[in-house]
Amino acid sequence: MNPAVSPAVQDLPREIIARAVARGWMIATAESLTGGLLVARLVDVPGASHAVAGGTVCYSLEAKHRLLELESEELERTGAVTAEVALAMADGARRAYDSQLAIATTGVAGPGPDDRGVPAGTVHLALVGAEGLRHAREVHLDGDRDAVRAGAVEAALRMLHDALADLPDQR
Amino acid sequence: MNPAVSPAVQDLPREIIARAVARGWMIATAESLTGGLLVARLVDVPGASHAVAGGTVCYSLEAKHRLLELESEELERTGAVTAEVALAMADGARRAYDSQLAIATTGVAGPGPDDRGVPAGTVHLALVGAEGLRHAREVHLDGDRDAVRAGAVEAALRMLHDALADLPDQR
Repeated sequence: MNPAVSPAVQDLPREIIARAVARGWMIATAESLTGGLLVARLVDVPGASHAVAGGTVCYSLEAKHRLLELESEELERTGAVTAEVALAMADGARRAYDSQLAIATTGVAGPGPDDRGVPAGTVHLALVGAEGLRHAREVHLDGDRDAVRAGAVEAALRMLHDALADLPDQR
Repeated sequence: MNPAVSPAVQDLPREIIARAVARGWMIATAESLTGGLLVARLVDVPGASHAVAGGTVCYSLEAKHRLLELESEELERTGAVTAEVALAMADGARRAYDSQLAIATTGVAGPGPDDRGVPAGTVHLALVGAEGLRHAREVHLDGDRDAVRAGAVEAALRMLHDALADLPDQR
């Protein structure tokens, strides 16, 4: 597998699972705006159970607080669409599923801005993992709710793929 | 809304959200073989955040044990594809997301039987909720992995819909 090659989007889940299995890593997800679409893409790959620990969909602030141990005050103050919340969601998923790698999505699918005025199409992604992995990324996506969600899933898959591809070779 | 009418599958998520909102109930999911597809269908409805607390995808036995507080010994003994496990997953999701209604899916997507010899297409669904709701259902689905997953999602949506439709009217 050559890290320099970026596969087509439909090949990303299979590549991610293959790379995670080769390394013996388990993946966990924490999703807000993508609502389960990301984990569904990963577990769609045959043999995914060897690399996907599971995922949580935290749609409400309450669920983010309870399941991911995010501080309620911080959530109330900043809203749920920030890099800090995405990183905390990823940390929470990594802990909850006892996995080596975790990715989180939070954003505004639209239509229209959220109640903090964050515009539709704003998405924060975060990836945390063993070997010091810790990345946050903000993307801005055009289109309706479905397009924003699909774009967020693709961005998350690319983030997972690139993180696994960039790890130093074990073999 | 007339409980006697069973809507087309594509209308189920919207009907479920409308009925849950009308009752002030929040829904949680715990998915194994459907891997996030069920919660994704629910949160796809505009305004779903008023009725969907969230969901968990527990793909491994370890995740089922940790997140849903299922007993490891019971899981090891019976495997994960039983009515008891489905009910325990639903109970765990209801607790974890502090919701009035929870639904769980566990089954064998295939190809081929699981490591206990449970045949592909075997799916256990469970629904638990306030007002004493507690139902388990076993279905047997034909087709490949995608077909089994889609059939399991549809069966779960019908189970949610019918449970909400059968509740005594509040108005």
